[in-house]
Amino acid sequence: MLVSGRRRLLTALLQAQKWPFQPSRDMRLVQFQAPHLVGPHLGPETGNGGRVINLSAFDSMLPKMMTQFLEQGEAILSVARRALGAQLPVLPWLEVTSLAPATWPDKVVCVGMNYVDHCKEQNVPMPMEHINFSKFANSIMEPYDEMVLPSESQEVDWEKGKHIKATDAMAHMAGFTAAHNVSARDWQMRHDGKQWLLGKTFDTFCPLGLALVTKDSVADAHILNICCQVNEEVVQSNNTNQMVVKTEERIAWVSQFVTFYPGDVILTGTSPGVGVFRKPPVFLKKGDEVQCEIEELGVIISKVV
Amino acid sequence: MLVSGRRRLLTALLQAQKWPFQPSRDMRLVQFQAPHLVGPHLGPETGNGGRVINLSAFDSMLPKMMTQFLEQGEAILSVARRALGAQLPVLPWLEVTSLAPATWPDKVVCVGMNYVDHCKEQNVPMPMEHINFSKFANSIMEPYDEMVLPSESQEVDWEKGKHIKATDAMAHMAGFTAAHNVSARDWQMRHDGKQWLLGKTFDTFCPLGLALVTKDSVADAHILNICCQVNEEVVQSNNTNQMVVKTEERIAWVSQFVTFYPGDVILTGTSPGVGVFRKPPVFLKKGDEVQCEIEELGVIISKVV
Repeated sequence: MLVSGRRRLLTALLQAQKWPFQPSRDMRLVQFQAPHLVGPHLGPETGNGGRVINLSAFDSMLPKMMTQFLEQGEAILSVARRALGAQLPVLPWLEVTSLAPATWPDKVVCVGMNYVDHCKEQNVPMPMEHINFSKFANSIMEPYDEMVLPSESQEVDWEKGKHIKATDAMAHMAGFTAAHNVSARDWQMRHDGKQWLLGKTFDTFCPLGLALVTKDSVADAHILNICCQVNEEVVQSNNTNQMVVKTEERIAWVSQFVTFYPGDVILTGTSPGVGVFRKPPVFLKKGDEVQCEIEELGVIISKVV
Repeated sequence: MLVSGRRRLLTALLQAQKWPFQPSRDMRLVQFQAPHLVGPHLGPETGNGGRVINLSAFDSMLPKMMTQFLEQGEAILSVARRALGAQLPVLPWLEVTSLAPATWPDKVVCVGMNYVDHCKEQNVPMPMEHINFSKFANSIMEPYDEMVLPSESQEVDWEKGKHIKATDAMAHMAGFTAAHNVSARDWQMRHDGKQWLLGKTFDTFCPLGLALVTKDSVADAHILNICCQVNEEVVQSNNTNQMVVKTEERIAWVSQFVTFYPGDVILTGTSPGVGVFRKPPVFLKKGDEVQCEIEELGVIISKVV
């Protein structure tokens, strides 16, 4: 059922091409499964994003999972670039099952209160220091799949976030993708000793992707329009230029505490318009469809079930 | 240098046999590396715990990593049991490099304020609901290695914890091990919007192991003496019978939020005696040696560097 729901959403998306922002068409790496292939595979999107190249068909020795692929460092990206230039058979998106670009990262670091105007909507001063929390990898979901509304929470809220991968510092960051940082506000704010973890890490609460857009494919990650729609109504519309702590600083700061590994993910914050700070508050309900989009990076569409 | 430090600690430990509690000698699964073997391997401890059987030598098709091994479910434990009964060559511990029994779990769930007398020492009521937080896998360290005191924190505190693995619920839990839930109290309590994550997840802040002791090897996990020594002075001495929320309930409760996978880890709480609640507070310093021990499960010795 999940697959057919996902297939339907993706079909509608490809037919309608209704996203407002033009995605970058440079180097967009995706993970996918296909009926004739065993296990996950990866490769660059090609054409207008409707097709994907199976990198294993170009070189069967290349790693098939994004984490292992990124472990090879910058050099392997040039292999992917050569594959894009070669005349290889392509797989149409409708014949494959898309996966999130990072499926089992060691960590998902999330950033709190990192947009100037998101602080204003809460009527709180900008934080004097970094605020970080985490999600577990179980919450990661591919970007056109169904999001499960847990019966334990009555206050599930949308939020978009920009999302990067790093090994150690900016020089080692692989690229960008879009993430939807879903929150169960009751569990985030009122239980669990005010630790945010459980409200953030329900299964399916981190839709991610579709592509890892390599950093050289993005002109300026700190000037990108971001938009979130719930049932086609725009609820968040902002730009990454409102970020309090820029991505380079964030990586350097968090790497004081932890060693980053290939495939690790940082969600760099959300902008104003979230449901919990509306008057009255608005939360997601079954049947809602949430669309999160970041200019040049991509669009996530999640049906709430 | 780490290896020689570890070797020295382990040698001293094996020679002195100075731990007060008698470890269970039933089924203790360990991960290790050896000069003649490529990558991590695993197998049961044997004899008095000074030697280990390489399960790959018994059956080369068996998974070599604990996570993949546990994915096979209960049946594979009987294979390990048969290997214990067979006359196989054994590797002395001093010829191998020990690893933590879970090296890259999907999640490390930690429990706050779960010992009656740990609440009393803080002069706070027992929590009315569960308190959970997390560490990233980067913090996991094998149990005789050196623990790095980060220059960013001035308040690094010891804590012991009992530590279980589960797939879905108690019926699927593989077993128990010992964990040392090290905390940088300044970062846990006074920064980062009061999220505990960063203070808990510095590299090396989760020594773990040595063995995964299968659940049928432990008579009653809720009646086990626990002891923590700093420089041979006992600072925490307690029993798991003081736990507020028992392990079965904890697994069921957390599994409301997340799907557990083989190799996932839960640190079920600490008992009184931690440094931060001493008057005046006491924190770890370079050169300290911390020994954490749980009856039947094992001992962790970490030198602070």
